[in-house]
Amino acid sequence: MSDTREQILEQIKVQGDLVRQLKAAKESKEKTAPSGGGRVSSSGVPAQRQQQQQPQKQQQAQVQQQQHEQLHQIDEEVARLLALKATLGGDAAPTNQKFTLKTPKGTRDYGPQQMTLRQGVLDKIVQVFKRHGGEAIDTPVFELKEVLTGKYGEDSKLIYDLKDQGGEILSMRYDLTVPLARYLAMNKISSIKRYHIAKVYRRDNPAMTKGRYREFYQCDFDIAGTYDPMLPDAECVKIVSEILDTLDIGDYVIKLNHRQLLDGMFQACGVPADSFRTICSAVDKLDKSPWADVRKEMVDEKGLDEAAADRIGEYVRLSGGAELVEQLLANEKLKAVPNAVKGLEGMKQLLKYCSIFGLDKRVSFDLSLARGLDYYTGVIYEGVLKGESATVASPAKTSQQNGEQANEPATVGSVAGGGRYDNLVGMFDPRGKAVPCVGVSIGVERIFSVLEARAAASGLKLRTSDVEVYVASAHKGLHEQRLKVLNLLWDAGVKAEHSYKLNPKLLVQLQHCEEHQIPLVVVLGDAELAQGLVKLREVTTREETNVKLEDLAAEIRRRQQASA
Amino acid sequence: MSDTREQILEQIKVQGDLVRQLKAAKESKEKTAPSGGGRVSSSGVPAQRQQQQQPQKQQQAQVQQQQHEQLHQIDEEVARLLALKATLGGDAAPTNQKFTLKTPKGTRDYGPQQMTLRQGVLDKIVQVFKRHGGEAIDTPVFELKEVLTGKYGEDSKLIYDLKDQGGEILSMRYDLTVPLARYLAMNKISSIKRYHIAKVYRRDNPAMTKGRYREFYQCDFDIAGTYDPMLPDAECVKIVSEILDTLDIGDYVIKLNHRQLLDGMFQACGVPADSFRTICSAVDKLDKSPWADVRKEMVDEKGLDEAAADRIGEYVRLSGGAELVEQLLANEKLKAVPNAVKGLEGMKQLLKYCSIFGLDKRVSFDLSLARGLDYYTGVIYEGVLKGESATVASPAKTSQQNGEQANEPATVGSVAGGGRYDNLVGMFDPRGKAVPCVGVSIGVERIFSVLEARAAASGLKLRTSDVEVYVASAHKGLHEQRLKVLNLLWDAGVKAEHSYKLNPKLLVQLQHCEEHQIPLVVVLGDAELAQGLVKLREVTTREETNVKLEDLAAEIRRRQQASA
Repeated sequence: MSDTREQILEQIKVQGDLVRQLKAAKESKEKTAPSGGGRVSSSGVPAQRQQQQQPQKQQQAQVQQQQHEQLHQIDEEVARLLALKATLGGDAAPTNQKFTLKTPKGTRDYGPQQMTLRQGVLDKIVQVFKRHGGEAIDTPVFELKEVLTGKYGEDSKLIYDLKDQGGEILSMRYDLTVPLARYLAMNKISSIKRYHIAKVYRRDNPAMTKGRYREFYQCDFDIAGTYDPMLPDAECVKIVSEILDTLDIGDYVIKLNHRQLLDGMFQACGVPADSFRTICSAVDKLDKSPWADVRKEMVDEKGLDEAAADRIGEYVRLSGGAELVEQLLANEKLKAVPNAVKGLEGMKQLLKYCSIFGLDKRVSFDLSLARGLDYYTGVIYEGVLKGESATVASPAKTSQQNGEQANEPATVGSVAGGGRYDNLVGMFDPRGKAVPCVGVSIGVERIFSVLEARAAASGLKLRTSDVEVYVASAHKGLHEQRLKVLNLLWDAGVKAEHSYKLNPKLLVQLQHCEEHQIPLVVVLGDAELAQGLVKLREVTTREETNVKLEDLAAEIRRRQQASA
Repeated sequence: MSDTREQILEQIKVQGDLVRQLKAAKESKEKTAPSGGGRVSSSGVPAQRQQQQQPQKQQQAQVQQQQHEQLHQIDEEVARLLALKATLGGDAAPTNQKFTLKTPKGTRDYGPQQMTLRQGVLDKIVQVFKRHGGEAIDTPVFELKEVLTGKYGEDSKLIYDLKDQGGEILSMRYDLTVPLARYLAMNKISSIKRYHIAKVYRRDNPAMTKGRYREFYQCDFDIAGTYDPMLPDAECVKIVSEILDTLDIGDYVIKLNHRQLLDGMFQACGVPADSFRTICSAVDKLDKSPWADVRKEMVDEKGLDEAAADRIGEYVRLSGGAELVEQLLANEKLKAVPNAVKGLEGMKQLLKYCSIFGLDKRVSFDLSLARGLDYYTGVIYEGVLKGESATVASPAKTSQQNGEQANEPATVGSVAGGGRYDNLVGMFDPRGKAVPCVGVSIGVERIFSVLEARAAASGLKLRTSDVEVYVASAHKGLHEQRLKVLNLLWDAGVKAEHSYKLNPKLLVQLQHCEEHQIPLVVVLGDAELAQGLVKLREVTTREETNVKLEDLAAEIRRRQQASA
């Protein structure tokens, strides 16, 4: 077998050289070819611009024919090469160049630096959730398609479906709220205070430079149960402020509004009842588009009366605090609409509780806040970063991969949002039994983007491993001794690593420690080992002490405690 | 609007009553109907058993006709009801009874109890990974389909594909190893020690009673880089043993084998080179099937010569330690095959390092270990639980939902596995540049199942929230005072909650604390508040002390430290 294998490997080498020569020959011809030769696809179809250059047609046809033959020969020889490699089975690596190596559009990998930052953010968020008594749950990443159907209004088109491979028809979760509602209805749970941190999926056109992705984490906290008005709602607002405070990502405001007030306002402005939802989606765009564009959408696309649109325009420019609630409660048009009055009374109570929670300067009652999702029925809110601190990282590499413009001015707005949805659980219950809910979702991807930009600007490198001690050889032939010392340290719970080379150079080992900010090195040498000793070295000071092997783990613990 | 709305709600109520009456009438008729009536589907098609009962055919036809008309009427009235509800827009909950409320086949929700257990397990595993210098990464849950193609051999049919909705063709990740290889090749990383904890997807026929699912967590640790033989490999075996020790889930053995030895053995037994992979898949089934079945598969399905199969049978029953390696190195047939000798030399070195790591009693060189995946090229290993401790939970509810037999005898075998795969990264590199890798995957779902069974047997209930203090009202009218005290506690970092009712009964509040094992209660009352005091009560001892409001947070911290 070994001889045969060697022979095959030699044949692969020869065949590989042949393919490379053919490709090189083709390339050099293309460079000297008169025109149109640079963009011939592998199927032999010429590039579009050829059709615009009639005079050169004949010459091109000749070039094309040559190229076609050449490609055919290359293909044949490549196939021969692959066949040879295949005979080696799993031991050979058939090179796979047929597709660009990338993550799916709108997604990204997290490397160790990003994961360290991310884990720090999530830990802080979980701390806040737990401070408010949150319990964790998890649900599958996909659901029966029917579970998601009819829950997201105009956004439903962004749901990822799985291929029908026989069996159930599935879709990827679009948020964590609908799966929570399904979970509560399915298990007949009538009250819970839960948090859920997981990825959700939206076939949006992602602006990754703005921290928007097709796959992204949501961190949700929801309070389900039949309770007195605004008590759970106000706590959700408090949670948003605690999280944004603890993450220290800059000044922010939490905008508040109420779906019942919006409906009442639409009614007061003369919007027909069956257009409330679609007009609400238009208002939702006010955080990204100017009023003129939104008005145009209402009138031109959604057929709203111009006068009604202008009346909406008057309201949605209003924002303020408790005084604005009083002003609107006195407004003749709104006063006449029970939904508007109910919404305003709710806002009054919410603002009162927020005031007790010390949030007067953090919250803003804002009539332009609408939020896109269909399922909200009461309070809605959104945490928004203010000003320059909201500039995010624009990772040039990732953007280019996905054909986007790098370095475009990038700002993040909303970093948290949520509201009350009292009817969603009932949609899943066979008897329509409702479980009122209110919740908040933290936009962690945008928060990561802000913090990544800040880390990049500061040039600070996070430590991505927790290794406390590196075990090094001072000279050759000590790898088994290293393993013995490592085993002793691991069994004592010390975080330790070494080179996986039998005989690494001491300088290389010490450099590794400096690069990776590992604080301590154990240096092994025959002279010390003969006396049952090892050298313990502080990486920053380069100070060395001899330590008895049996005292090593305890000595390391002692130093860690001293430096902590 | 409000009047209109009230009117619609009234109409909905009337219409809803009508539908309920019709359904009740249908049900009572079905109960008295002679036969075949109990299993009429909503489409009006009778149940299968009717076809077997010819004599009653006419009577049944009549019943059927009645039922058909009845169903039609019900459908019409339900449609009317839904239309009425639709006029209310998002504010009404159209009850959605058209599908069974369940999670997709082979998946499950994790409730707070399960999440608490799970988080405890994952934390311990991460601790071990970090002790060995692991860095975390994360990759998208789906990949370009081409990334997964050709990596899993016979298992490829189990990959979940996403629907083609325009754009890229995507598949759900099948494991975390291929995405790691793609990540390394794409970012030209030639060495890393990374861990990754995430869900993977396999369209398998799940045996959920055995802790096997279609969506499940993997916890992977991999060492990538060009290093000296067996040093990283042995560390992976050590990591498996540390994890199984720290989780304390019962006695286990780590089986070891080597793909090169398997190939050499197949060659020595007379298996043709192009059948190595498929015969290896057959051997892989030895942990679940007896030799006779595996032999049958080799001979009948895979066309292997009977004599060759019998020779394989001789080898795969062997297991042992360093002495078995020596014995096989002296074996005439194996000695003649270079691959076998290389594999055996590797095993010798690995067993030596495992011995230094104190694993002599934990590892077993086992020639029946094959592992299914195509990409392994060197050492392979598998951690297996022994004996009775390996019985797992059989959650009756979940099983029934998915039409499986509950209470079937359930045992878990493999709880960790992995090996060396030196060519996988090269498959993604345009120049085929290899990055040798070795890694291990912890089968956490099976470990959860074992621990859940143990928790269920012990009757022990885990605390699912971390709340330290409950803020209670002794009498009515104190909800704003509660919010003030809560705000003070939260701002001091104390984990605290209260009832979301304005005026909850004191007894109900105290019961909540006992049920949820909350250690402390702050009881508010007008008499104490007037003096700037609150009552602090220990839930277990029922001991109460008056504490000044401004000292409350500090006093709670003091008690926590005392009880810790």
